[in-house]
Amino acid sequence: MDERISASYLIETAFPLDEAAAVMAGEQSTGTFVAVPGETAQLKQRNGAVVERVVELGWADSPSLPGARSPKGAGAPRWRQAEVHLSWPLRNIGPSLPNLMTTLAGNLYELAQFSGMRLLDFEVPRVFADAFAGPQFGIEGTRRLSGVHGRPLIGTIIKPSIGLSPEETARRVRDLCEGGIDFIKDDELQSDGVDCPFEERVDQVMQVILDHAQRSGRKVMYAFNITGDLDQMRSRHDHVLARGGTCVMASVQSCGLVGITELRRHSQLAIHGHRNGWGALSRSPQLGFSTPAWQKFWRLAGIDHIHVNGIRNKFCEPDDSCVASARSCLTPMFEAPAKDFRIMPVFSSGQWAGQAVDTYEALGSVDLIHACGGGIAAHPDGIAAGVQSLRDAWEAARSGVPLPQFAATHRALARAVEAFGT
Amino acid sequence: MDERISASYLIETAFPLDEAAAVMAGEQSTGTFVAVPGETAQLKQRNGAVVERVVELGWADSPSLPGARSPKGAGAPRWRQAEVHLSWPLRNIGPSLPNLMTTLAGNLYELAQFSGMRLLDFEVPRVFADAFAGPQFGIEGTRRLSGVHGRPLIGTIIKPSIGLSPEETARRVRDLCEGGIDFIKDDELQSDGVDCPFEERVDQVMQVILDHAQRSGRKVMYAFNITGDLDQMRSRHDHVLARGGTCVMASVQSCGLVGITELRRHSQLAIHGHRNGWGALSRSPQLGFSTPAWQKFWRLAGIDHIHVNGIRNKFCEPDDSCVASARSCLTPMFEAPAKDFRIMPVFSSGQWAGQAVDTYEALGSVDLIHACGGGIAAHPDGIAAGVQSLRDAWEAARSGVPLPQFAATHRALARAVEAFGT
Repeated sequence: MDERISASYLIETAFPLDEAAAVMAGEQSTGTFVAVPGETAQLKQRNGAVVERVVELGWADSPSLPGARSPKGAGAPRWRQAEVHLSWPLRNIGPSLPNLMTTLAGNLYELAQFSGMRLLDFEVPRVFADAFAGPQFGIEGTRRLSGVHGRPLIGTIIKPSIGLSPEETARRVRDLCEGGIDFIKDDELQSDGVDCPFEERVDQVMQVILDHAQRSGRKVMYAFNITGDLDQMRSRHDHVLARGGTCVMASVQSCGLVGITELRRHSQLAIHGHRNGWGALSRSPQLGFSTPAWQKFWRLAGIDHIHVNGIRNKFCEPDDSCVASARSCLTPMFEAPAKDFRIMPVFSSGQWAGQAVDTYEALGSVDLIHACGGGIAAHPDGIAAGVQSLRDAWEAARSGVPLPQFAATHRALARAVEAFGT
Repeated sequence: MDERISASYLIETAFPLDEAAAVMAGEQSTGTFVAVPGETAQLKQRNGAVVERVVELGWADSPSLPGARSPKGAGAPRWRQAEVHLSWPLRNIGPSLPNLMTTLAGNLYELAQFSGMRLLDFEVPRVFADAFAGPQFGIEGTRRLSGVHGRPLIGTIIKPSIGLSPEETARRVRDLCEGGIDFIKDDELQSDGVDCPFEERVDQVMQVILDHAQRSGRKVMYAFNITGDLDQMRSRHDHVLARGGTCVMASVQSCGLVGITELRRHSQLAIHGHRNGWGALSRSPQLGFSTPAWQKFWRLAGIDHIHVNGIRNKFCEPDDSCVASARSCLTPMFEAPAKDFRIMPVFSSGQWAGQAVDTYEALGSVDLIHACGGGIAAHPDGIAAGVQSLRDAWEAARSGVPLPQFAATHRALARAVEAFGT
C-alpha cells in the first residue's frame, strides 16, 4: 500500500501555478478550504496528495470557464494554462474503481481557483490489475470470436436507429452477412422498445447469423444492445449467450462504473462499450476528461471495445483527438506478467474506404473495428461491394500502395472512390 | 405506450433554428446523417422525436464550444442561442433509466451543428413512478429518522477528509453529538482506506451515536460513505444497518445509474447522494446538464438527499444556480396519487449561520440539510455554540426578524456574526 496513483491535468488559473496545484492536491486528499485541527504533518505525509510536477503551457486574457476567482488586488489577471501532475497514496482508497473516479475527477472541477480543469491521463498500480478482471476478450479474443485476422473487422450499424421490427432487422442482417460483413451493432437508441423487443430481435438475428455461419464457416459478431438495469442486462446477456451470440453492447456512461463492473463479472461474451454522453464530459477543451483518461476507467471495469469516432468524422471531434483515443486503447495499462488491458478501438461516424490509409498511417495498426454506415450500404454496387471496398482499402494501406493506384486494379474500391470521394 | 417523454435544451448553432432542432430530433430517434432506406413516413410518425417548440434567446459573434460547423457560403456566421423542446414516444425505450439517459443526453453533445448543447430539464410519464421505487425516505423519512422537525437538519462533515483513524473519527463524532448536531457525513474521499477501514469506522462511530441517543433520545444521522463495487456497497449497507445506523452515502456520478438503482433496491436506509464530478458535466454553461435535469435521474434511481452547494459557497457555482437546484429537489416529479419523488437538498460549502436568512428567502422552505464545517467547528465558543448559532439563524429566518436584531438577544448567533461576518 506504499504504491501511488498518479494523474495529469490541464489547468487554467489566475493564481500562481504552484499555489493552484497545491489547492488541487489539498482538496482531493487531506485538506479543505482552511487549515483544520487534526491535519497533522504526519497525516499529511501519510495521506496527502503530492504535486509531482507543474509545466506552464501559456496563458490567455480571459478565463475559459466562468465562475473562477482571481487573486485580490493583483491587477488584471493573467489566466495561465499548465499541466499539473499529482500523485496519491494507494492506501487512501485501495483498488476501488468508483473511489478512484471520485479521487481523480470529483469535486476539483468546482474549485473556484480554476477557469480550466481537465483530467488528461492517469496511472494506477498493478494491484488494480489483480483486483479487476479487465477485458475478457480484448483484441485477440475479438479476432478469435469473429474469425478475422490481419486486418480490421469491417463493421456496420443497423439503421434506422429505431423503429424496425425484429424481422426487418434480421432481413438487413441477412443482406449484410451475405455481403461479407464481420461485425454489426444495434444503435445505442435501440434497446428493448415496444416495436423491437430485445429477445425477439436476438432470436431472429441469431437465426440468420447461425445459418450464415454454417454455410460460410464464420460467425458474424453482432453487438446486441443490452443497456438496462442490472437484472435486465444479465438476463439479456444470458439470452444472447443461449442463442449463440458472441457480443453484447452497453452504453457505459448511462450504466456507470458499478453497472459495467457487474456486467463484466457476469459476462461470458465480448462487451462492446458505447460512449454516448461522452461529449458532455469532453467537448469543452478546458473541462472534464480527455478520452485517453476516460477510457481507462472502462477498461478497468472490463469492456472489450470502445468507440473513438474516426478520421474526418461527421461529429465535431478533431482527427488528432480520435487518433490519440485509439492509440491509448492499444497501449498496455500494465506491464507483463500482468494482463495489459488493451481493447479494440471502434472507428465510426462518416467512415468509408477513403479513411483506411490515413487511419493506418496515424495508428500503425489494424487492430480496430472500422464501422461504416453509408460507406457500405450506399455503395453503388451494393453491400458486398461496399464491404469489399473497405477490405481493398485496408490492403492498400497495409501494402503502402497509394489508394488511387490500388483502386486502378480493384473495382469495388474504385467505385467507392467515385461515389464518396470528393 | 402512447405517452411521451419530453425534454428542453439550451442550444447554440449557426444553422437556422428549426433545421438545427430537427437534427437533434432525428439523431436521437429514427434519423442519422443521411436519409436511410427503411426510414418510412410511418416509422418516423411512430418512433420519431418531435420538435415541440423553439424559442430564440439571443446570439453571439463567436461559438461557445469548438468544433461546430456553420452553413456553407452564408458569410460570417451568427451563433444563435435558443431553448428547444423535444418529445419522444415512450414506446422507443419503455421506463428504463439508462436508456432514458442515452436518449436525452447521448450522442447529441457531439453533433457538429452545435456550439452549445445543454439539457435543461425533462419530464417522464407516470409509468416511471411505477417502475422505479424512488426515494425511500425523502424529506419526511429523513425527518422521522433524525427526529428533526420544523427546521433544517444542522449538519457537518468529518475533516480532515481522509487520514483520521476510526477512533479519531469517533472522538469528533462524540464532540459533535454533544454539541447538538443533527447530521454528520463522511467526506467523499473517505471510503475504506487502510487508515480508516469502513467496518471499524462504523463500529466506533455507531457506539458513540447510540450512547448519545440513549441519553438524549435522538439518534444523530451519520451518512457513511459506502461507495464501492456493488457487493461492497451491499455489505457495507448491511453493516451500517446491523449497527443501528440510519443513512449511507454514495458518490452517484462515480457509481452510475445502474449502481445506484441496485443500491436502492437493496437498501433499508436513507441514501445520501454525493454529486462529486458533477462540475465536469455542468461548469461550461453551454454544455452538459443543468442540475434540475441531472438530479432527476438520481431521484428516479432512488436517492433521498443530494448536494446543491449553497448561497455564497466557496466553489464557483452562482447562487441562483444553487437555489434552482434546491427548488427542483423540492418540486414533485409526479402528480398524486403517484409518489412525488421529492428529496432533501443539502446546502454545503462555506456555510455558516450567515446564509440562513437568504437561503430561506430564496427557497421558501426549511426542508434541507444545512451542512457547515468551519461555521460550526470554528465557532469561537465551540461546537455547541456553532450548532446553536445555526438554529438561531434559522429561527430568525422563519420569524422574519433581521439577523442583526435577532443576534442582539442570541449570544451564539452574535458570536458567529462577529467571527464569520464581514
